[in-house]
Amino acid sequence: MSAPLRLGIAGLGTVGIGVVKIIQQHADLLSARSGRPVTITAVSARDRMKNRDADLSGYTWVEDPVELATRDDIDIYVELIGGDNGVARESVELALKSGKDVVTANKALLAMHGQELAALAEENGQVIRFEAAVAGGIPVIKAMTESLAGNHITRVMGVMNGTCNYILTRMESAGLPYEAVFEEARQLGYLEADPTLDVGGIDASHKLAILSSIAFGTQVSFDGVEIEGIERVSIDDIRRAADMGYRIKLLGVAQMTGRGLEQRMSPCLVPADSPLGQLQGGTNMVVVEGDSVGQIVLRGAGAGEGPTASAVMSDIVELARGVRMPVFGQPAGRLKKPVHARTAVPAAYYLRLALLDKPGALAKVATVLGDAGISIHRMRQYDHQDGPAPVLIVTHKTTPDAIDHAIAELPKTGVIAEDPVELRIEEV
Amino acid sequence: MSAPLRLGIAGLGTVGIGVVKIIQQHADLLSARSGRPVTITAVSARDRMKNRDADLSGYTWVEDPVELATRDDIDIYVELIGGDNGVARESVELALKSGKDVVTANKALLAMHGQELAALAEENGQVIRFEAAVAGGIPVIKAMTESLAGNHITRVMGVMNGTCNYILTRMESAGLPYEAVFEEARQLGYLEADPTLDVGGIDASHKLAILSSIAFGTQVSFDGVEIEGIERVSIDDIRRAADMGYRIKLLGVAQMTGRGLEQRMSPCLVPADSPLGQLQGGTNMVVVEGDSVGQIVLRGAGAGEGPTASAVMSDIVELARGVRMPVFGQPAGRLKKPVHARTAVPAAYYLRLALLDKPGALAKVATVLGDAGISIHRMRQYDHQDGPAPVLIVTHKTTPDAIDHAIAELPKTGVIAEDPVELRIEEV
Repeated sequence: MSAPLRLGIAGLGTVGIGVVKIIQQHADLLSARSGRPVTITAVSARDRMKNRDADLSGYTWVEDPVELATRDDIDIYVELIGGDNGVARESVELALKSGKDVVTANKALLAMHGQELAALAEENGQVIRFEAAVAGGIPVIKAMTESLAGNHITRVMGVMNGTCNYILTRMESAGLPYEAVFEEARQLGYLEADPTLDVGGIDASHKLAILSSIAFGTQVSFDGVEIEGIERVSIDDIRRAADMGYRIKLLGVAQMTGRGLEQRMSPCLVPADSPLGQLQGGTNMVVVEGDSVGQIVLRGAGAGEGPTASAVMSDIVELARGVRMPVFGQPAGRLKKPVHARTAVPAAYYLRLALLDKPGALAKVATVLGDAGISIHRMRQYDHQDGPAPVLIVTHKTTPDAIDHAIAELPKTGVIAEDPVELRIEEV
Repeated sequence: MSAPLRLGIAGLGTVGIGVVKIIQQHADLLSARSGRPVTITAVSARDRMKNRDADLSGYTWVEDPVELATRDDIDIYVELIGGDNGVARESVELALKSGKDVVTANKALLAMHGQELAALAEENGQVIRFEAAVAGGIPVIKAMTESLAGNHITRVMGVMNGTCNYILTRMESAGLPYEAVFEEARQLGYLEADPTLDVGGIDASHKLAILSSIAFGTQVSFDGVEIEGIERVSIDDIRRAADMGYRIKLLGVAQMTGRGLEQRMSPCLVPADSPLGQLQGGTNMVVVEGDSVGQIVLRGAGAGEGPTASAVMSDIVELARGVRMPVFGQPAGRLKKPVHARTAVPAAYYLRLALLDKPGALAKVATVLGDAGISIHRMRQYDHQDGPAPVLIVTHKTTPDAIDHAIAELPKTGVIAEDPVELRIEEV
């Protein structure tokens, strides 16, 4: 049995305490699976006096994470502070420079500075592991970096923000408007301090940018993600989509096309009976498509103490075993700077219009769509009393440009009472 | 960049040729991801003259796999011959003794001789990798061995034989009896030469035994699997189960209980809207439950050239990178000999009876169940003309012993026209 692996853990929130508990409760299992004991040397957190659900008396308490990161008596710096700058970034950089490997759950840090950190790690002969940064307990980083290494990856998709999926699922099941469920989620403590990280799609986009890099061998590029949050998803659209056999999900999609790398995070329609469509509440799902493997679907809890701590532990055990992977699956110098392409892959679209009760109104709408080269797959006009008539259209596959053009032209017909709603129907 | 990794591939069927193609088509990608070129030195197969869908002219042809396994110019012996004995076993043993690592897709070999092979590999400082042996392209071996290393695994379940799932799915969708769909599957080439390997549940049980070993740290034990194939699943039961909201799947379940290790492979009912219930055709699914991670679901193609070759390549890249795992996730000497427990974990059960049209018949059935301590959750009696009345019963949770007792007692009532059908409803 080799020498013990010594950890320094910075950040003792839910995940940090989860990691401490696993190490305390499963010491034998971990040493059997790692080939060496896994121990905690020192810990650091903002408030030493806070009551925490674990006995920390055996560990050195260090006030400053930066000091923890550079201690001689740790082998791995476990960064669970969070945030893309400040002490998280500073401590990770210093840990690498001080000859420590880094395990982190920090998606923002990797999405914003992943390329520099990967290069810094390599310069110093260290590695950074981050299974917990994407989709909680689901082993998607390992699956993509290692299990699919023989594949040319063609597309990666995922529902990777449990809070958004909770809100959308709950809106449908309770028939409540967005604002009401958002408030519920806030009271349940499901939202980040800055809720736009969740509902604005930022958090999920951080994760998508990380997956893109591994999938396509490109430098991680959060700026290249076209982002739209779930704020404008209405209970009307959720109901109408359900009528047509769809569910609305905040879906991230990345694919490499002839024009460049498309990365988008947006509310999309998916078939209600597809694995993505069936996803309820806080559960996450990642779908990876490769030229050999076909489609692989990974599903599990995307957040929470246990699942996230499980992912952190998988990284720790990997390093304990001496497994050392390049940060994004290939040497940092080989990762290409991506050309960002605005979404151009054709798809079917869902359109919801509020049609004024005028003769020939529907003909005018159909003409605009036809002129834009869009053909209609299914159409429904609903009962209406006095007000404008809700009209739903599912198009055949068309380009985002054609849809944008039609959306711009529709109000000029004079038969539309509100701005049309358009949502992409992602093929899954 | 390190020295090339040199492979010797024995067996050039679908999977072997799939591996050759990936190595030829993705050479750059593989060397970027492995840190070294991946090359094929020599190959072996039964018939040199057979027309194969790949150019093999650059490789040394070796008639005897055993000779291939011991050549000085290979680092890894890739065994894709199959079978739990004979040349597959002999060549793998000799490869290990000759200082080669082994990559194999051979579930029968590992299920029957896994413990000896793991010990032999360790004695010789070599490793055996076998991602392709279980659930094709789904990275379940890596997920369980590495990603869930911080978890105490509580249960593993899976639909792991695509042919059986094809037959059951097709029976339901086409309304055809078992025999007709079995014949279709045979003509489509979906069945093994010995079809009982598929429909008798043997192949899926090999896979379950392998997963059990990794999950529970026990010596792989195929003999400990209670096996029942799909031969007695009738279209009647598929229809009736669907009426009650269930689908019938050939489901493998392994769990460690206070009494010992339960491993069973049998047709079970699962909720039609669960991930397992939704699985169509040849797709496989593995569900792993751990104390920290909760439930992880992995889904993908369970067989076929691309998916299986993808899994073989993941093992090859892992070894190219210098990653060396104990065969079943822990040193062989630490794996405990399992105590086999007959299934005792309680479950709900589905019972189908053919009730004779006699006064008090149902009361007699209810009395037998009540006396066995079984309470009824749902009951349906169907229309019948002349013949006995089909009666469906879904019980509350009860023990397999209680069900066995009731099944033995029911014919004694004199009101049952045929032997009752009982199927376990697995909680998923």
